[in-house]
Amino acid sequence: MELWYTEYQTKNLGLTCRIKETLFQGQSEFQEVAVVDSLEFGRMLVLDGVFQTSVFDEYIYHEMIVHVPLCTHANPKKILVIGGGDGGAVRETVKHAGVESVEMVEIDGLVVDVSKKFLPEISAALLTNHPKVQLKIGDGIKHMAEAEGQYDVIIVDCSDPIGPGEGLFTPEFYRNVHKALKADGLFVQQTESPFYHQDLIRHLYRDIAALFPLTRLYLANIPLYPGGLHCFTMGSKKYDPLQINVANLPELNTRYYNGAVHKACFELPNFIRNLIR
Amino acid sequence: MELWYTEYQTKNLGLTCRIKETLFQGQSEFQEVAVVDSLEFGRMLVLDGVFQTSVFDEYIYHEMIVHVPLCTHANPKKILVIGGGDGGAVRETVKHAGVESVEMVEIDGLVVDVSKKFLPEISAALLTNHPKVQLKIGDGIKHMAEAEGQYDVIIVDCSDPIGPGEGLFTPEFYRNVHKALKADGLFVQQTESPFYHQDLIRHLYRDIAALFPLTRLYLANIPLYPGGLHCFTMGSKKYDPLQINVANLPELNTRYYNGAVHKACFELPNFIRNLIR
Repeated sequence: MELWYTEYQTKNLGLTCRIKETLFQGQSEFQEVAVVDSLEFGRMLVLDGVFQTSVFDEYIYHEMIVHVPLCTHANPKKILVIGGGDGGAVRETVKHAGVESVEMVEIDGLVVDVSKKFLPEISAALLTNHPKVQLKIGDGIKHMAEAEGQYDVIIVDCSDPIGPGEGLFTPEFYRNVHKALKADGLFVQQTESPFYHQDLIRHLYRDIAALFPLTRLYLANIPLYPGGLHCFTMGSKKYDPLQINVANLPELNTRYYNGAVHKACFELPNFIRNLIR
Repeated sequence: MELWYTEYQTKNLGLTCRIKETLFQGQSEFQEVAVVDSLEFGRMLVLDGVFQTSVFDEYIYHEMIVHVPLCTHANPKKILVIGGGDGGAVRETVKHAGVESVEMVEIDGLVVDVSKKFLPEISAALLTNHPKVQLKIGDGIKHMAEAEGQYDVIIVDCSDPIGPGEGLFTPEFYRNVHKALKADGLFVQQTESPFYHQDLIRHLYRDIAALFPLTRLYLANIPLYPGGLHCFTMGSKKYDPLQINVANLPELNTRYYNGAVHKACFELPNFIRNLIR
């Protein structure tokens, strides 16, 4: 008997994966949390039926949401990760020797527990209680409203803008992100698919550009996500990701990210340029 | 009643699309040819059950397989397209005012007929009998073996390396491509997914690099294809695609391709760099 699970990426499109077994399935206060083992992607975290990350391709998302902003900032020391319950973003963040502290605020403790148990290669920095990492289970929106001028880089590693992630795509949230950053701070948010979430991207880009002198969208190829193409949006008070000196990049031991990719990922096809014009 | 069609991209992974209706289904001497109308991708050409192109995203593939080589060559006049039965590659080729002739050799006349009938926006240059285009229904492998020193650019717009496309991925075919090109000629071939066809890419890259002084792989984001990431391999006798002067590019009226994308698409993530090392 073959088991297949289909994620409906839109009303009319699905990605269907052959599944070896369901390793965990449970309901938290916020969402249904599951881990399945698939033949193509290996173990995957699934929230409310939506594929979040897999051991096959997680490195792409996590390297690109972390190293692009951290290599853009001249001296990132205090980092905040909102969401990121699987631990992949903090694992990449602590590769930067100059980072002094990584606060992580995840709303759903069950996601962290399940990731530590079933996705140890992703949650490595949480599992080992990395000394630079402080994990707080709580509301990232509230945390951001209370923070002021204290972070060099904020990484918004959220799920889709439905369910618990919804309030992380509002002008009010972006105002609080701006306030929580230092005078030369910058932030990055995962901002969905340029093929399938064009209205969302158009709006959030405009909202971020209204607050930050530098707003830039960049791309990464992630087979697990709709269309295989994902975008991230950066708002920066001072540093321009296109002006980095590639020769000065730290050794990061990455499988996707490198200096050339850092620059190339900001070069947008015409249809995406038009989207954020 | 909802109709869904699932393309199995690997043994363990499928893309499933909601279908409005099947517009055509028939058997040629070479393969099963179908056109379906889908809700997400619009009308799609399907060969032996494999999605070939859709009106939603065909521009990406066709712009990238044509404009990257044609903008790399200083003065491309004589163009050969192998395959490309849907007509998208010749449609893009004739956008270049300097091109004098485009020969197209497609093995399967039914693909051309069906594309002209059901995919008029893709087959436009065939439908209008564009004066620069000569269409020949025949064997591209044989045509290549007989050609010598006559083309500036050859575009191998083939299907997967199973079925009729198989002989287009061999060292012998590449030797004939080399022979068919002028002394400063170059060619490009679609070379599948860097996530799912790594062995194929490793081998063909090595075979092409053994013949051409410049061999380069480049990327495009195509939601219809496995993993959403597709690669193309260029073998060039003289011109380097990285050395083009972006300021001199012609006006092409494209939705994906532009000068910045031309340069960025050659910047490879580490896992692809390692593949072709």
